[in-house]
Amino acid sequence: MTNSFTTSGLFGDLFHDTEIASHFGAAAFLKHATAFEVAWTETLKSLGAVPASDADAAIDAIRARVPDLLALADSSNANGMPIPGFMTQLRDGLDDRTAQAIHTGTTSQDVIDTVMVLMLMDILGVLDARLGQVLDALTALERDADGTLIGRTRMQAALPIPVKARVHAWLTPLRDHHERLASLRAHVGQVQLGGPVGLRDTPDGQGDAAAMELARRLGLRMGPVWHTNRTPILDVGHWLVLVTGSLGKMGQDIALMAQQGIDEVKLTGGGGSSAMPHKENPVLAETLVTLARFVAVQQGGLAQALLHEQERSGAAWALEWMILPAMAEATGASLRHAHCLIDQITRLGPA
Amino acid sequence: MTNSFTTSGLFGDLFHDTEIASHFGAAAFLKHATAFEVAWTETLKSLGAVPASDADAAIDAIRARVPDLLALADSSNANGMPIPGFMTQLRDGLDDRTAQAIHTGTTSQDVIDTVMVLMLMDILGVLDARLGQVLDALTALERDADGTLIGRTRMQAALPIPVKARVHAWLTPLRDHHERLASLRAHVGQVQLGGPVGLRDTPDGQGDAAAMELARRLGLRMGPVWHTNRTPILDVGHWLVLVTGSLGKMGQDIALMAQQGIDEVKLTGGGGSSAMPHKENPVLAETLVTLARFVAVQQGGLAQALLHEQERSGAAWALEWMILPAMAEATGASLRHAHCLIDQITRLGPA
Amino acid sequence: MTNSFTTSGLFGDLFHDTEIASHFGAAAFLKHATAFEVAWTETLKSLGAVPASDADAAIDAIRARVPDLLALADSSNANGMPIPGFMTQLRDGLDDRTAQAIHTGTTSQDVIDTVMVLMLMDILGVLDARLGQVLDALTALERDADGTLIGRTRMQAALPIPVKARVHAWLTPLRDHHERLASLRAHVGQVQLGGPVGLRDTPDGQGDAAAMELARRLGLRMGPVWHTNRTPILDVGHWLVLVTGSLGKMGQDIALMAQQGIDEVKLTGGGGSSAMPHKENPVLAETLVTLARFVAVQQGGLAQALLHEQERSGAAWALEWMILPAMAEATGASLRHAHCLIDQITRLGPA
Amino acid sequence: MTNSFTTSGLFGDLFHDTEIASHFGAAAFLKHATAFEVAWTETLKSLGAVPASDADAAIDAIRARVPDLLALADSSNANGMPIPGFMTQLRDGLDDRTAQAIHTGTTSQDVIDTVMVLMLMDILGVLDARLGQVLDALTALERDADGTLIGRTRMQAALPIPVKARVHAWLTPLRDHHERLASLRAHVGQVQLGGPVGLRDTPDGQGDAAAMELARRLGLRMGPVWHTNRTPILDVGHWLVLVTGSLGKMGQDIALMAQQGIDEVKLTGGGGSSAMPHKENPVLAETLVTLARFVAVQQGGLAQALLHEQERSGAAWALEWMILPAMAEATGASLRHAHCLIDQITRLGPA
Repeated sequence: MTNSFTTSGLFGDLFHDTEIASHFGAAAFLKHATAFEVAWTETLKSLGAVPASDADAAIDAIRARVPDLLALADSSNANGMPIPGFMTQLRDGLDDRTAQAIHTGTTSQDVIDTVMVLMLMDILGVLDARLGQVLDALTALERDADGTLIGRTRMQAALPIPVKARVHAWLTPLRDHHERLASLRAHVGQVQLGGPVGLRDTPDGQGDAAAMELARRLGLRMGPVWHTNRTPILDVGHWLVLVTGSLGKMGQDIALMAQQGIDEVKLTGGGGSSAMPHKENPVLAETLVTLARFVAVQQGGLAQALLHEQERSGAAWALEWMILPAMAEATGASLRHAHCLIDQITRLGPA
Repeated sequence: MTNSFTTSGLFGDLFHDTEIASHFGAAAFLKHATAFEVAWTETLKSLGAVPASDADAAIDAIRARVPDLLALADSSNANGMPIPGFMTQLRDGLDDRTAQAIHTGTTSQDVIDTVMVLMLMDILGVLDARLGQVLDALTALERDADGTLIGRTRMQAALPIPVKARVHAWLTPLRDHHERLASLRAHVGQVQLGGPVGLRDTPDGQGDAAAMELARRLGLRMGPVWHTNRTPILDVGHWLVLVTGSLGKMGQDIALMAQQGIDEVKLTGGGGSSAMPHKENPVLAETLVTLARFVAVQQGGLAQALLHEQERSGAAWALEWMILPAMAEATGASLRHAHCLIDQITRLGPA
Repeated sequence: MTNSFTTSGLFGDLFHDTEIASHFGAAAFLKHATAFEVAWTETLKSLGAVPASDADAAIDAIRARVPDLLALADSSNANGMPIPGFMTQLRDGLDDRTAQAIHTGTTSQDVIDTVMVLMLMDILGVLDARLGQVLDALTALERDADGTLIGRTRMQAALPIPVKARVHAWLTPLRDHHERLASLRAHVGQVQLGGPVGLRDTPDGQGDAAAMELARRLGLRMGPVWHTNRTPILDVGHWLVLVTGSLGKMGQDIALMAQQGIDEVKLTGGGGSSAMPHKENPVLAETLVTLARFVAVQQGGLAQALLHEQERSGAAWALEWMILPAMAEATGASLRHAHCLIDQITRLGPA
Repeated sequence: MTNSFTTSGLFGDLFHDTEIASHFGAAAFLKHATAFEVAWTETLKSLGAVPASDADAAIDAIRARVPDLLALADSSNANGMPIPGFMTQLRDGLDDRTAQAIHTGTTSQDVIDTVMVLMLMDILGVLDARLGQVLDALTALERDADGTLIGRTRMQAALPIPVKARVHAWLTPLRDHHERLASLRAHVGQVQLGGPVGLRDTPDGQGDAAAMELARRLGLRMGPVWHTNRTPILDVGHWLVLVTGSLGKMGQDIALMAQQGIDEVKLTGGGGSSAMPHKENPVLAETLVTLARFVAVQQGGLAQALLHEQERSGAAWALEWMILPAMAEATGASLRHAHCLIDQITRLGPA
């Protein structure tokens, strides 16, 4: 779903992230789908399932094809996804032997799930880098923090704590999430290959060998078919929840510290008001809260998609498409805002 | 948040709705925001709060202004919303008296909430028309339905029911939702006017008169300030949940009826598969299920925004912006698909 | 689902509500189910569908029956609900004609949905009274409020507002919800009568007359069969969301006002700490926030139950049972805490 | 929150789990809280922070104390949790030196979070065993499965698959979740020790040594303070989502297979109907779907609790208490039903 209110441009970059979005876009999709098809034909060739000459002709054809985007849209409207139309285009005008060297033995889900994985690998890379920057900024903030502030529990003054301790509490979970990312990427970075009903039985008796080869060519790991086992998707969602939630906690704290009467932080670049130009609103801190609550609730929807009936659920699968990309983009925005917000801090702790 | 995966174009119109989106877009925003400012200056003039000549000059200036969209984006990045930048642009180059005749006494929230209401009025109009078409199509389907099918409870064959009865069960809640729409529109269609902290105290002692006049000029109703009372937003979300949920029930039923072995519906235009061209997948039926589950879970997020702290919550308010437009667009898509799906039915009931 | 952590007794009455719970309990269930069966047999008699003597014998038997609770539990474990076992018990030892005068023409869903409606009528009555008390307390608080405090927008000091204005902002949405309750109760208070597959076709040709009579005897309104139209359940959930959300906003505000450095409220009876006995924590204010977020997210689950497939969905229906009662009980607790919290206020506004 | 509708006893054991519930109950709480306090006093003694004789007297007193449950409930109503009252009771009548050897240096959150962890260790042990049994049953089912059924994608007949393949698809994710459990338990099984504001600074300069010793005595691991880093709670919730979601997929499949016209499974013990005694409803299969959707949506609420403001959030913390235990109990019920459902299968695949 688009959200033309927040992403019309009028709301700047608060609620979207163009870099993350680009990794989910049509060009990225077609790049990865093309890579999948090329790698698959190479796989068929290397396993002797198609003659080398047919495979080479097929690969040339795949690479030469300029996709007709409008026809892909039509395919989706009819078929629920662009892959059937993409196959028609890839095979258009080819002789039967060459056409047969393309896609045969795989299915639309193999392509789309693998494309999604490749997109997520790129995106987790971006988020990794951004989270690293946030960690660096927080580490510097902790190092330079000085003095004490009143620790608060249940929103009430409790006992003094070093200002460093508050920063440390922001840093710790984010560092954990960062460390967890490597294993998440390894876990999620698996090829999808199951064929029409998930049996992974082509080419004859060599399904696992084919998956191994396909994975190798795409820089992914090989594992069992996961057509109906959507755990990796949920695991990505969970990580996005953790990151945005931890940043949301920081944002909430900073918004509370910025209250007049508390005055524990001084920010530059706070937002103004159309009626009260004297105000300096902690806009980014608030936005971290918004994004965290948004991502949190989405996970409750993504989890509904675990009820993936039979060998392939159109309904549950598409629910992932509607939810996970928005969560990833929100996380990208959250990391960007967090970094900027830390940079806006000119004083941390009481004046 | 954008979702560049589902809305890159590659997925056709399954998961977005360009007409609903356009009503949330930048052009619509600026049209309504401009209308608000003109109506407000007219209101100030009619109440004698600003001299007629100043008001007229201000209105001419508002109408003549070509907004600088990039500067509005910058305003949002700094201020959390485009209105402060919009005011700067509207007042740019004006003498003080004219500038004072613009926006004075209102606040950004008055503009944005009223703009949102005006957008929702347009969008509920679109949804009203589409729901009417779906009701017409279902009414015809019920009228023409013939014979019996096996009623199923707990997914088990129970007793025969007229095919009409199944259609009637789809129609009834949708007709209720349609009837409810008039009162929803009347309830939601209220102006927002509170000023900086919601007191509605300007111009001097004439706040309610100003709200009345402003509402009249914008074709809205006048009611109390609702800066922090987000009930109308939740009410719209609730209605969207009901509509998509009822359509999702129909979609789920049709997908179940289309199973081989059950064969209680025949659809044209079912979707194909890249690996199994013989298949005719009930793509739109499944998509209704997807959209229903998507919208349902969003309401749990929108409801978090009721915790709107103090006189204005940046965090809670922006959560509405992130969620409600996506719900509305999903509802638009759901109604469109439902209509199309009903048209695809060439046989209802056993062969 | 139970939650033995919060309701073991150790957490007092913070997270449950014994009065609301009692209206959902076994005794209430059996009272209403018995009332349904008596009213139904009376209906059959008054329509001439069973002889008066059979009906009278049946009613005597229904009234005399002492339910075997363990056998009802067994029925649920096998059948998903207690009604089949309840029927076995009601008919046990009766001659065929008397047994036939019981339940014939209705189905388990008719009983359970009507029982749920009768429970909700009782519960909405309790909530109505409690909300009335909260409104009275807030009205008095507003009346007695004096002076000004600094209005805050985006958590930043904005402009002074009368203390009254803050209370007024708490009061307004709650008053709206209270006013809305009468129409909600009228809307929800409808009998369920559809028979096995929702056709409402017994006794012969008199289904609507039977529903009318049954409704009259149970003090409910008559409307169409709503076996698969779960709108009333969602409407109740929506109202519970609105009430707890509005109370959560008040709780959030009070917790913010109670911060040292802000000091805009003085509460008696604030909670202590095991490590910091000097603290006075705004426990009830925080609990209102907790309950609001809890109820809010549940609505996103309740809405999934709109996808009620075919003539009866065991899965979707049971989801309502798992969610709605917990929402209602949380609302009961929220209203109770709100009233108590308002009573704890000894100063509102700056010292 | 209780749910007196589903847990009144009338609904049998469908929607609750007495064994899991007992691990969250008052007796378990007090056992673990007592173990915490004993271990803490032992820790103080072993670090030389209190004289051995005082510590021994304190431990004797802790062990001898019979808690007054009603007074603990009162403590919660006032303080939001039972620990302040528990401390009053533990120290009641003790001389100052003995009293000082109890709890000093810790805080309520240390006790409650550690109690929750100890409860979760017990509960994950129960779930581990149950999941092992489900895996055994599924492994046997796969081993004995024979023949083919029509694989279905998008709810449409696709291609034949071995019956074994469908079972394998149920088994695979559950086996993954089972394998993941060891690392989850190791990760979650950490002591909480931070003191009033999370600094872990007592006894003098020996906070980490104390945490190490406390952890050792409680059979937990030592890690950093996690007062405001709620990742472990979310991680448990995520695992519960995965397990119930995977079981829900199996339940959905079985309910679909049990449809007349499909007839791919034969179950014994299916549920009857009050109006249609011939029916055999796949009650447990449906209940798996219900429980999965319930748990899924809760995770979206639990994730809101990541926004844990400052050094301790009463509101966010209590939200965990309201949600996580219900998720765990639902998972217990789901595993129990899954096992029973597999046992009910007398034929898998077409007749």
